[in-house]
Amino acid sequence: MSRPAHRRPEYHKINKDLFVLTYGALVAQLCKDYEKDEDVNQYLDKMGYGIGTRLVEDFLARSCVGRCHSYSEIIDIIAQVAFKMYLGITPSVTCNNSSKNEFSLILEKNPLVEFVEELPAGRSSLCYCNLLCGIIRGALEMVHLAADVTFLQDRLKGDSVTEIGITFLKKRDEKKYRGKK
Amino acid sequence: MSRPAHRRPEYHKINKDLFVLTYGALVAQLCKDYEKDEDVNQYLDKMGYGIGTRLVEDFLARSCVGRCHSYSEIIDIIAQVAFKMYLGITPSVTCNNSSKNEFSLILEKNPLVEFVEELPAGRSSLCYCNLLCGIIRGALEMVHLAADVTFLQDRLKGDSVTEIGITFLKKRDEKKYRGKK
Repeated sequence: MSRPAHRRPEYHKINKDLFVLTYGALVAQLCKDYEKDEDVNQYLDKMGYGIGTRLVEDFLARSCVGRCHSYSEIIDIIAQVAFKMYLGITPSVTCNNSSKNEFSLILEKNPLVEFVEELPAGRSSLCYCNLLCGIIRGALEMVHLAADVTFLQDRLKGDSVTEIGITFLKKRDEKKYRGKK
Repeated sequence: MSRPAHRRPEYHKINKDLFVLTYGALVAQLCKDYEKDEDVNQYLDKMGYGIGTRLVEDFLARSCVGRCHSYSEIIDIIAQVAFKMYLGITPSVTCNNSSKNEFSLILEKNPLVEFVEELPAGRSSLCYCNLLCGIIRGALEMVHLAADVTFLQDRLKGDSVTEIGITFLKKRDEKKYRGKK
């Protein structure tokens, strides 16, 4: 599925509820297809990866963000520009280590779970929003940045916030990463 | 999946590309799950029906549309308010019969197919956007209006426009309709 080259439609903004409910239908369908939570989580991540590799082209074209000179600049763009554009929220950012390649995005609000009060019964290790991790990983991959992206905390699992961890992999770790695509 | 009562978040608008690509992933997943196009079409319609029954509550709350006094007023609201709110487009409307219960929504543009150049091979009778028919049907059902909603034309099938037909069912037809939910 690729986007015809000639398109640059001028209309961009929509109400998010249709997206949020459609995403819920997607997760529900995957829960029917896969018994184990890990398989659903992995599939959402893989699906997100595919979406991220396509979305980043549009993001760069629409947002006109300039070249970044550090991992923390990249994280700020993800939090303040990309999340705002696609989900209408701006997570806060923390840097988690001295070598400045491990970060967290802290989501006080998460529109994807707005219609979800709790995880379905028997799905306690489901990462409901795992599509987001795949999208971030796929988008970073397209700008030649390998990263591990995972949920560190999840409100749907009783944590006080939802936290996405992003670890930029150093060149030598990339071989290990290649196998994950 | 129901929405917690206390929520009325103030942020509403997002960029549509994430939704459009996620919808594509949903259709691709259903095409893996179901061999026959009719089954995918039916499943998208059923999924849409479920989404429509929840979305209409939010739509009425956000849009503050008043009581309608005719089918054509309802169709105008669907085209000019709902489609604009959720997909960023305003389809044109035609009335197709003298008893004024058959209408068409003509979509010159359709954001859902923006990343789709053609139907997948061997999927010629796939109604890629059938979720929309189910959403309209489910939303109308929640305001006590039974209707048949189907694609009459589809650009992905070579037609010049995409046309959704909406037929409001008269009271006596409703028994036939009940079986479809």
